[in-house]
Amino acid sequence: MAISKNRIKYIHSLELKKKRKEENVFLAEGPKLVEDLLGHFDCRFLMGTREWLASQKNLTDIQDITEVTEEELARASLQKTPQQVLAVFEQLQYMTDPKIVEHSLCLALDDVQDPGNLGTIVRLADWFGIEDIFCSPNTADIYNPKAIQATMGGIARVRVHYTDLPELIRSLNGVPVYGTFLDGKNIYEQPLSEHGLIIMGNEGKGIGRDVEQLVNRKLYIPNYPVSRETSESLNVAIATAVVCAEFRRQAAWR
Amino acid sequence: MAISKNRIKYIHSLELKKKRKEENVFLAEGPKLVEDLLGHFDCRFLMGTREWLASQKNLTDIQDITEVTEEELARASLQKTPQQVLAVFEQLQYMTDPKIVEHSLCLALDDVQDPGNLGTIVRLADWFGIEDIFCSPNTADIYNPKAIQATMGGIARVRVHYTDLPELIRSLNGVPVYGTFLDGKNIYEQPLSEHGLIIMGNEGKGIGRDVEQLVNRKLYIPNYPVSRETSESLNVAIATAVVCAEFRRQAAWR
Repeated sequence: MAISKNRIKYIHSLELKKKRKEENVFLAEGPKLVEDLLGHFDCRFLMGTREWLASQKNLTDIQDITEVTEEELARASLQKTPQQVLAVFEQLQYMTDPKIVEHSLCLALDDVQDPGNLGTIVRLADWFGIEDIFCSPNTADIYNPKAIQATMGGIARVRVHYTDLPELIRSLNGVPVYGTFLDGKNIYEQPLSEHGLIIMGNEGKGIGRDVEQLVNRKLYIPNYPVSRETSESLNVAIATAVVCAEFRRQAAWR
Repeated sequence: MAISKNRIKYIHSLELKKKRKEENVFLAEGPKLVEDLLGHFDCRFLMGTREWLASQKNLTDIQDITEVTEEELARASLQKTPQQVLAVFEQLQYMTDPKIVEHSLCLALDDVQDPGNLGTIVRLADWFGIEDIFCSPNTADIYNPKAIQATMGGIARVRVHYTDLPELIRSLNGVPVYGTFLDGKNIYEQPLSEHGLIIMGNEGKGIGRDVEQLVNRKLYIPNYPVSRETSESLNVAIATAVVCAEFRRQAAWR
């Protein structure tokens, strides 16, 4: 069964946040990612090659499945090299309960702009056992196709919330709120908690002033050798990884 | 003075590796990056807005400077949001001396494919004081515009060599050769050296067999909680950052 032009148009329209919101859906491509998402998100429709469909056992819940040729998939796909399967899933919205932060380690993103960075952060949060990420309303949309692809399936295990960060932080009771700053304290010389909030800022501007005022543990990732002339910063996903790794090292391996 | 159509065509042609090689040049855009590169690379030509040009003091060595309007810059630029200046620089090739690896910590990349990942790795290498990166011939081209932009100027301080990795490693004498593997040893429980080679592999396939055989210190970045179900891997730039940060922590802060 061929894919209709309307369906191809619909898939391509999901590059737009407005359209994704209206429809409450998002697009995912490739066998690894789609297989990770099945069972976590409701699938509105799916198209796969004969080989991929034959390899799957648990597609009975999906009402709308189309078998496609590689050529048809390529016309529908947003990827340079389309891979076997493409699916449209329903978005999930989460209730933001500040209590989560009192009992586990969470991330907060203050206006991270690049969807690739956001997706990469979700992927590494998954690796480091961080299950909740709180994003400021101006942070990139996690349901952007580039963000979804970069999560590599992490989005099935990490909850991404959108919420007002100052309001969230003010509602926390005696919880450590960490952030990285040029005038912060060497992360390797600070005791790091197993719960609380780690705030990461925008690619260009870092953490905004309104949020900075609410940080009670300022950290710094030292460069090496210390005080050498270098680029002034790390990419936000890279800095997030170094910070999360150090939190987990202190919890499990110190 | 307007920019000629030929020049715009020339700039756009530098997206192609073949063209960059023929001309032995590369493109860089934006004030932060261009200012970092001036003085490290010979500039073949540069075009900047009136404001940017007025803000610069050391452009006297550059023979070919064009003042452009924002609109003209936008036509020449490969960036979504062109920023004030664009320049074409001459590539540098480095002599690969294995002795470097005996005296300092270096990275080796075995077929890292994505230019963005490569550029991000150069940027973080700069932060962590790693001055030499050895790339397999099939690794992405560091002079790809996406790679150059992602270095954020790190390319002015980090030497990127292209060389046969097995040959390089065989020429090393008693130097630790590290790599990350799923069956490696917990990086936080291993003493890490201040010199030697850290090998990072391809995004999909990891480190190739021929190189794996030559690794004498297999490492593993533990996830958290240990053995939890997660995505199976970290992005290669993320893993590189976590590894480099731990090497430097052990050297300076343990």
